[in-house]
Amino acid sequence: MMAPAAINLGVKLHVLAEADDVSVTTAARYTVGDYTDYDTLAAFADTVDVVTFDHEHVPTQHLQRLQDAGVPLAPGPGALVYAQDKLVMRRKMAELGLPQPNWRAVSSVDELLAAAQDIGYPVVLKTPRGGYDGKGVWVLNSPKEAQEAEVWFNGDHEALLVEAKVNFRSELSAQIARSTTGETKAYPVVETIQTDGVADIVKAPAPALKDETAHSAQQAAETIANSIGVTGMLAVELFHTPETAAGFMINELAMRPHNTGHWTQDGALTSQFEQHVRAVLGLPLGATDPIAPYTVMKNYLGAENHDLYGAFPAAMRKYPHAKIHAYGKSVRPGRKIGHVNVLATNGDLDAALAAAIDAAEIIRHGRTDS
Amino acid sequence: MMAPAAINLGVKLHVLAEADDVSVTTAARYTVGDYTDYDTLAAFADTVDVVTFDHEHVPTQHLQRLQDAGVPLAPGPGALVYAQDKLVMRRKMAELGLPQPNWRAVSSVDELLAAAQDIGYPVVLKTPRGGYDGKGVWVLNSPKEAQEAEVWFNGDHEALLVEAKVNFRSELSAQIARSTTGETKAYPVVETIQTDGVADIVKAPAPALKDETAHSAQQAAETIANSIGVTGMLAVELFHTPETAAGFMINELAMRPHNTGHWTQDGALTSQFEQHVRAVLGLPLGATDPIAPYTVMKNYLGAENHDLYGAFPAAMRKYPHAKIHAYGKSVRPGRKIGHVNVLATNGDLDAALAAAIDAAEIIRHGRTDS
Repeated sequence: MMAPAAINLGVKLHVLAEADDVSVTTAARYTVGDYTDYDTLAAFADTVDVVTFDHEHVPTQHLQRLQDAGVPLAPGPGALVYAQDKLVMRRKMAELGLPQPNWRAVSSVDELLAAAQDIGYPVVLKTPRGGYDGKGVWVLNSPKEAQEAEVWFNGDHEALLVEAKVNFRSELSAQIARSTTGETKAYPVVETIQTDGVADIVKAPAPALKDETAHSAQQAAETIANSIGVTGMLAVELFHTPETAAGFMINELAMRPHNTGHWTQDGALTSQFEQHVRAVLGLPLGATDPIAPYTVMKNYLGAENHDLYGAFPAAMRKYPHAKIHAYGKSVRPGRKIGHVNVLATNGDLDAALAAAIDAAEIIRHGRTDS
Repeated sequence: MMAPAAINLGVKLHVLAEADDVSVTTAARYTVGDYTDYDTLAAFADTVDVVTFDHEHVPTQHLQRLQDAGVPLAPGPGALVYAQDKLVMRRKMAELGLPQPNWRAVSSVDELLAAAQDIGYPVVLKTPRGGYDGKGVWVLNSPKEAQEAEVWFNGDHEALLVEAKVNFRSELSAQIARSTTGETKAYPVVETIQTDGVADIVKAPAPALKDETAHSAQQAAETIANSIGVTGMLAVELFHTPETAAGFMINELAMRPHNTGHWTQDGALTSQFEQHVRAVLGLPLGATDPIAPYTVMKNYLGAENHDLYGAFPAAMRKYPHAKIHAYGKSVRPGRKIGHVNVLATNGDLDAALAAAIDAAEIIRHGRTDS
């Protein structure tokens, strides 16, 4: 999704893609290769002026080695590690004094049991690395369930992260861009509705959020971006906890254009993708103003309909205002394959939400009846 | 510029490009070839589901032959000829009873002199084919000047078009999309300011236009689109003549996404490029509502600054709200190499216009002082 932004600015992209990656169908230039192989990365880096990312799974040690070899990385490994490793992130948030759930690093079931007792059940056990979209996350409701987590202490990780399961009112995302020049620009804080660990719906801006809390979440995002030296887009995923002093707690970080920012493609003056391109090239950042009172984003995941294109007419006919995005990926159950944005230009959030959900469901299930 | 729209919809583009064409840097798949060579066209057509165009210079006889061979063309040669041949177009507008300047087909200087006498000087002499951006157009103010036009009657054209030089208040453009299914959707009528034959500035919607005239121009565009069977985007370029009954006269037709519609990339719910893709694929058309009270488009043509990218920081820093578009073309004096869109979200057209002009000039001249 960075390609349209790059094309509009006349910037050339070269994509290192997995074989079954959508980028192959959309970027001017691509190389198919394994991002966990150092030599592949180094050869690719030789062909570009700056390297950036659309996921966080490139091994930190490879990034460090590339950086030591003089390759401009945006963000660099020193920043990216906070999105790659949840324990490193928790330690940093604590150091910055930012609000977060009670947490511990645990290396054995005994340590887990002691920590969970201290934190109070239910707790959430997480692998520090490799988890995303709800993977690598285990909710433990009792010592009995904690005992069953023994299988996770298998030597893949030095320690696991255990933290309080926060009783939140909703989930939020505070996105900020930080340029290589140090300039930052925050987007409005949005509400995200997670389904099976995926940000399924986004309401932008978050409709039931105090200005004070939104502002303070944006400030937290700026503190993080500056402290860890982010370049590009940073998403700070938050729990909305109005009963706490700050009103929010930090959940996770993502250091790239993020699912919770897809609404900006149609709903903000500068999309997160254009902003990311600007930031990693050291260009001045664009205005982040929303275009409509509200914009809604609804994902569609792979389901029984494999002919998405065949379902477009029904969705487009019913919702001429909907902005339908398809990633050109093959359909697999549960895979993120597209999303729908709807602008509530008249301020009617509920109507926009209903339209986005229905349009996405028409495509997902191949409905032609509407 | 169709590429971002196609990418967002998950539609694959294959571009037949000239060697020095921007498409080469932006489309997933391209073939470099000569669009005036039938075999090149036929081989290219074999690789795609539907063929469309971003200019009107593919020879009509080649298009006819491709169509006869069963290649889906959108638009087809039967429609495209009205954008390719100004005499054919004038005859059709007359047949449809649509308002246009007084005109004649002339095959010799003697016929030209008689027609100009009849129409009244000044007149405009045009080659029916091959002219664009002010090329192939000659304003004649007197019989003496008409006499000098003898050189144009050189056998390249069976006849030339001579027409009244209209004393217009402004120039307008009425864009409409028509799908292969026959569905049409009109965009707001815009005002265009032409410089040296190029639509240099667009104000959308046209600020000093009666609703009645705008509506009637949209109806004329719909009549044309349906009568000649357009598929894709049609731009009807108009003279605004408030003293006439209709309030406008038809100048020219363009049958593709058009310079006067670039404002829609950022200023309308559905851009002309997405609309064109939808139309040629037979998908339902998108809403054409403007996003802001006004949007301004300002072209930048090639000038002394060849390092456009180097000028981006100054323009972006001064105008974080400006949407800068660069075509990735090499800079040649007078060549269209990019444009700037500015949304007047607060309704202040003059401020948006000033910002768009200044941002474009910073890039064009490589100013870094601001």
